[in-house]
Amino acid sequence: MNSIKIFAPATVANVSCGFDALGFAINTIGDEMVLTKTTEKGVKISKIEGAELTFDSNKNAASVVVKAMLDKVNADFGIDMQLFKKVKPGSGLGSSASSAAGAAFATNELLGKPFTKLELTEFARLGEKIACGSPIADNVAAAIYGGFILVKSYEPLEIVKLPVPNELWVAVIHPQIEVKTEDARNVLKPNISIADAVKQSANLAGLISGLYTNDYQLISRSLVDVIAEPHRKKLIPLFDKVKQTGLQNGALGIGISGSGPTIFGLCKGEKSANNVANAMKNVYQNSTIDFNIYISKVNTEGVKII
Amino acid sequence: MNSIKIFAPATVANVSCGFDALGFAINTIGDEMVLTKTTEKGVKISKIEGAELTFDSNKNAASVVVKAMLDKVNADFGIDMQLFKKVKPGSGLGSSASSAAGAAFATNELLGKPFTKLELTEFARLGEKIACGSPIADNVAAAIYGGFILVKSYEPLEIVKLPVPNELWVAVIHPQIEVKTEDARNVLKPNISIADAVKQSANLAGLISGLYTNDYQLISRSLVDVIAEPHRKKLIPLFDKVKQTGLQNGALGIGISGSGPTIFGLCKGEKSANNVANAMKNVYQNSTIDFNIYISKVNTEGVKII
Repeated sequence: MNSIKIFAPATVANVSCGFDALGFAINTIGDEMVLTKTTEKGVKISKIEGAELTFDSNKNAASVVVKAMLDKVNADFGIDMQLFKKVKPGSGLGSSASSAAGAAFATNELLGKPFTKLELTEFARLGEKIACGSPIADNVAAAIYGGFILVKSYEPLEIVKLPVPNELWVAVIHPQIEVKTEDARNVLKPNISIADAVKQSANLAGLISGLYTNDYQLISRSLVDVIAEPHRKKLIPLFDKVKQTGLQNGALGIGISGSGPTIFGLCKGEKSANNVANAMKNVYQNSTIDFNIYISKVNTEGVKII
Repeated sequence: MNSIKIFAPATVANVSCGFDALGFAINTIGDEMVLTKTTEKGVKISKIEGAELTFDSNKNAASVVVKAMLDKVNADFGIDMQLFKKVKPGSGLGSSASSAAGAAFATNELLGKPFTKLELTEFARLGEKIACGSPIADNVAAAIYGGFILVKSYEPLEIVKLPVPNELWVAVIHPQIEVKTEDARNVLKPNISIADAVKQSANLAGLISGLYTNDYQLISRSLVDVIAEPHRKKLIPLFDKVKQTGLQNGALGIGISGSGPTIFGLCKGEKSANNVANAMKNVYQNSTIDFNIYISKVNTEGVKII
């Protein structure tokens, strides 16, 4: 294989009750990338479309991953990379993770698949570190594994792939405002009460149980965030209104995707996802804020060759 | 039915990663109770064996439950209660919960089963409030439902019954020292870092996943407590030594049962539970501290008629 074209899904991290531990992948939005072997060693970014990102291969979230992998196996070839960004940077949909995960997957294919998914996740975290300052794993793991994933631990890194009930759909709306990851971090308090920690933990446990038993109502009752949402929602105009109307229109739960500003609504079935998307859309249509909106089945396969 | 004799299992709450949210029931130790209808209304405690507890039916963890249930349905009979305590008060094995859960179950049978398990749990919490000052649900729910239970939320009370892998056994050792629930509470800090909350939460999520998939190694890696154990273990002499030897001898995990001083070891299979029990026993045999020790399959049926 000399060249590969891949689709790397956008991802929703945190998922209300799973702060810094849970993520899932989306079918209908994701970066596309073409990676081609070159005789010249090293990594070259020859094209970036859809976002203004650096061509410096030491500073781009995708190319640092490719470079680390080529170095690791002492590859006798280099890679040319073309990046078609569909996941907007700063959207809260795992934009850098999509590119980093896609780069890890594609490079592994060109190398003859020497690495496991867990190892690819480790490599992709290097891209997150470049992009966000921190090698977080929830988005990249969701993009690589597909479906719902749990970051069980960081030392050592352990990813648990969770089942996805067949009718689980998602509506996501991305209001075109900027929420800096740094601001989203700073708005959180460093400590929380044990009581709140127990609540969050029990909701995550309830969600996991609901995923294993296809219990949509249990999933719904578990999609509660007492850690991040109460603080971060202030950074997202009209969040409360979107949440209220989303729930009134049948969403299982509405929450902030990653550190925002994208808002996700988990739904049972395509029809419900459409209803919820329309309801959320109406809120921003009656404002001055532009937005993008998507509905999708929860992606279960992760990065794939296209 | 005029009279009923029941077995109400002892329970392990918290289970390392499930602080204030998780519990499971034990087969080989539990209170026995005989409840008999009387023409005279109200509740009378005619016998208590095995512990020095009050015969005042307004202050006993079992009789307050019976009384509340009889009052609720405006019963035209009373109940005489005999209590054979096998679960020692202050052991950390849910002694009051065993009596309260047994009382709820037995009274429901004598009334013709008007109440659901969730309602019985609500009634049994009244006993916990009398005994511990707080209407906690983890022990009583585990005793009533059997198996592993998750207290998903308190308002409203929601209990999720979790699956129990078939080879899951437990070794419990009760060193004969007193740990007051109040001290066990006071030793905890009221706030924890978000980082620790995420770790605890991810471990609970891992444990839940392991229970659904019969993944004993995932269960093992998830039995980690960063909230309570680091503080409470100081109240239990030789805890570190017991934990170390238990793990060395094959336990999936070792932790504090409830607020202690009982230490539990979850194990895969009876033979492993025996090995772990022997190893833990040796630690206290070489000390001046008396102890009781039990091994058991994890109980899956809860309170039962005997």
